Amino acid sequence: MKRISILLPIVLLVFPLLAQDANSQKINASHVNRHHALLAEYVQFCAIPNTWNDAEQLRQNASFIIEMMKKRGITNARTLEAEVPGAIPAVYGEILTPGATQTLIFYAHYDGQPVNPAKWAEGLSPFKPQLLTTSLDKGGQFIDFPTANTPINNDWRLYGRATADDKAGVFTILNAYDAIRQSGLAPKLNLKFFFEGEEEKGSTNLEAILAQHKDLLKADAWIIVDGPMHASGRKQITFGVRGDVNMNLTVLGAKRPLHSGNYGNWAPNPALKLVHLLASMKNNRGKVLIDGFYDDVVPLSKTERKALAAIPDPAPIMQKDLAFAAAENPKRSFLESITTIPTLNINGIESANVGRLASNIIPTMATVTLDLRLVKGNDVQRQIQKVVDHVKKQGYYVLDHEPTDEERMQYPNIAIIRNGVGYNAQRTSMDVPISQAVIKAVRSTSKEEIILMPSTGGSLPLFLFEKVLNTPPITIPVVNYDNNQHGENENLRVGCLWDGIETIAAVMMMGGF
Amino acid sequence: MKRISILLPIVLLVFPLLAQDANSQKINASHVNRHHALLAEYVQFCAIPNTWNDAEQLRQNASFIIEMMKKRGITNARTLEAEVPGAIPAVYGEILTPGATQTLIFYAHYDGQPVNPAKWAEGLSPFKPQLLTTSLDKGGQFIDFPTANTPINNDWRLYGRATADDKAGVFTILNAYDAIRQSGLAPKLNLKFFFEGEEEKGSTNLEAILAQHKDLLKADAWIIVDGPMHASGRKQITFGVRGDVNMNLTVLGAKRPLHSGNYGNWAPNPALKLVHLLASMKNNRGKVLIDGFYDDVVPLSKTERKALAAIPDPAPIMQKDLAFAAAENPKRSFLESITTIPTLNINGIESANVGRLASNIIPTMATVTLDLRLVKGNDVQRQIQKVVDHVKKQGYYVLDHEPTDEERMQYPNIAIIRNGVGYNAQRTSMDVPISQAVIKAVRSTSKEEIILMPSTGGSLPLFLFEKVLNTPPITIPVVNYDNNQHGENENLRVGCLWDGIETIAAVMMMGGF
Repeated sequence: MKRISILLPIVLLVFPLLAQDANSQKINASHVNRHHALLAEYVQFCAIPNTWNDAEQLRQNASFIIEMMKKRGITNARTLEAEVPGAIPAVYGEILTPGATQTLIFYAHYDGQPVNPAKWAEGLSPFKPQLLTTSLDKGGQFIDFPTANTPINNDWRLYGRATADDKAGVFTILNAYDAIRQSGLAPKLNLKFFFEGEEEKGSTNLEAILAQHKDLLKADAWIIVDGPMHASGRKQITFGVRGDVNMNLTVLGAKRPLHSGNYGNWAPNPALKLVHLLASMKNNRGKVLIDGFYDDVVPLSKTERKALAAIPDPAPIMQKDLAFAAAENPKRSFLESITTIPTLNINGIESANVGRLASNIIPTMATVTLDLRLVKGNDVQRQIQKVVDHVKKQGYYVLDHEPTDEERMQYPNIAIIRNGVGYNAQRTSMDVPISQAVIKAVRSTSKEEIILMPSTGGSLPLFLFEKVLNTPPITIPVVNYDNNQHGENENLRVGCLWDGIETIAAVMMMGGF
Repeated sequence: MKRISILLPIVLLVFPLLAQDANSQKINASHVNRHHALLAEYVQFCAIPNTWNDAEQLRQNASFIIEMMKKRGITNARTLEAEVPGAIPAVYGEILTPGATQTLIFYAHYDGQPVNPAKWAEGLSPFKPQLLTTSLDKGGQFIDFPTANTPINNDWRLYGRATADDKAGVFTILNAYDAIRQSGLAPKLNLKFFFEGEEEKGSTNLEAILAQHKDLLKADAWIIVDGPMHASGRKQITFGVRGDVNMNLTVLGAKRPLHSGNYGNWAPNPALKLVHLLASMKNNRGKVLIDGFYDDVVPLSKTERKALAAIPDPAPIMQKDLAFAAAENPKRSFLESITTIPTLNINGIESANVGRLASNIIPTMATVTLDLRLVKGNDVQRQIQKVVDHVKKQGYYVLDHEPTDEERMQYPNIAIIRNGVGYNAQRTSMDVPISQAVIKAVRSTSKEEIILMPSTGGSLPLFLFEKVLNTPPITIPVVNYDNNQHGENENLRVGCLWDGIETIAAVMMMGGF
């Protein structure tokens, strides 16, 4: 008895791992010989433009996803519409397991950031995916898509908008389930699928969709497949996200563009005004100077601090790869910078034209797009208000629309501020059973220790799942960190698709928790 | 005898004025009934695109001008080429008057500033000239071009690139001579015509053209028809110009655009760096903070100061029209700002995208185009060097080309600075006989006192005429001040064409000086 009682825990501990491994092997075997077909299908998927403000493009993506679901035997595949004019539908599907009492719902999004094709490298086009031998920065060369006889190199890069963010999420989720199915296995849990079409514009109608389909979307946890993995390439689980909101701020000058010789030094220059306004907001060591900007922050728990400390610092690898000599604030670590500190980033500035398009003028206006990242404790409206108050304190008359001529003549400094739709940060506890179960599943697919991030630097409106559905979200990123997500030349390391399928399939195969 | 000797000066004084008036009447009569045809021809001229970097477009303009010259009996009409690859030719023509010993040469330029059609008002297109009832800002409405029976309203505006800057100069010069010819009169001087095709890019090859055709271009004065008149609409003569040079400055960040959530607060933000660099260059009261920036300035002479003081301040009218509450530095007068002070203007700033095109990224670079206006005494190379030295003093490693990865890793602050081709300021004395003769001729066409400007705020490479040909230039602007020259929605008050013809014709009809 004693012997048994000693052995039992060992068996219990080892058996699931072995089972998982055996399953993993089967699952892997079932997709490896289909990589050529999968890559071809993924290229087709990425070739459908998906700019966040183009409803027609997005509906084409939704239809393509529904077709992919049907081919894989996923049931009840359909769009979930929000009853809001102009809302982009989410895509839903499910695998109901007889007798299962627990449910995981897998999330990714199929919309993409805007593109400016002129800024993409020569030979690249955002919606004409191209294969390169490695990343452009490392001297990647264009290659043809492989025929059946050419082996696929996992280090190849697929270039195109959304190849990484976040069609890779949609595609690995669907093919993780497909790999399980094709290997003859079956999940023990109910699986649901939810693909959002409005993430890049700030998930405007996600709350409405969740509320409207509350019963359909019932689950024990949301598994979010989005964002980049650790720079080391090690697998990762993330338990929180920062919040986010954009602000567009335009400083006005004269109503008409003015010849800089005939009016320069006299007419107010809105570009110079904006320069001084922005300099007053953040010093050149990265410290935001706006009153109370760092208030409200909820510090990390003991477990979270411990997890953060265990993560190897990716900064040296990344810094070399990105080729810059010093971080914004060299005294602040990378992980600290992106997890515990609210930010005020300049996403872009525009005033008239520069370089060959420039004219010798005093511009009529200067615009900055600011990106405020929020951490746990920040409230999005409160954070916006701090910025607005600061602008007012600098002597600006602030509106959210064009001023009248009378206002222009009355106020020497005028700023138009228009806010995007934003949201707060979210963090799921790393100690709850579902968190522990997911950690175990992902670990089973990795030879190296996996990365456990209390919060990522990026943002998703994950607080909504808690708020509307009372369900905790956990994020499993699957794409390479150097994917140029949101910018030009977005790309995916091809091997991330296969690794992602393996990881997500392991989570889908979890027992109860 | 005594009586005669008393009368004679009076006769001499009055007679030319009367003769001028009689001639003026004849000349005016000769063009007034051709306004419909002239307007139609001008629209054709402005419809030929003339962007400064498009050689093919510019040659089409040159051909059109030569045709206009031939139609008007102007002899020896031809291009003057510079023996430099890619140089844009000037257009030359002449009217040689038998027995004349003095020569005036009339200058305008036919190239235009770059256009960004997206920034023009709805319904306008830079090279599809359109007629409006008045300026857009004053509620101008689109109207059809007039048929022979519709009277032309002088307050109508013709919208299109170069309608004001400076095809109006070319057109009024040619038609001033044509009006003289068609009225049966003849000039007493030799008249020469010189139309430049490279003014907007900084007159890169003007020196070469002048040097190569030194004999052909021999004259007693250059009469420059370019730039806007006084805001009051009063006729004007300008005796000098500021110098000008552009600098493009790009601050670098990471090599790739980075997700602002995943890397923001850590990766250096070149837009924030540029903001601080620019703020260090010029305070928000318009004072340039660069060491020695205001050194070298040659103050105005007594006559120049007197002339400047006699000019009514156009600022109140303009400020209302342009709808702003305060000048860059409210303590500095408009005329002082634009004539006696070197400037550092921001023409434009660009870093990634803003507004609907913005992405949540940390940009890879931020660029500013600066416009340095020079006054008499400034040297263009010295002025540029002051800016470069300032950037270096702020801790920047300065190059004129892309850095290597090694340089990127070595220097925390990197700026790429590329300078345009610039030139120094020029001022012709108001006391010399030619200046006095031109003043008299222009006065004879104006009921109101005319404006005598020691220097305009704008720039032309007028120093070259003194340097290469030893000939003084004098400028007679003919277009409305509110013409949006160099910016979007450039336009010409139609009546300026007719007034300009009258003014230039009077100068062409001058006797000896």
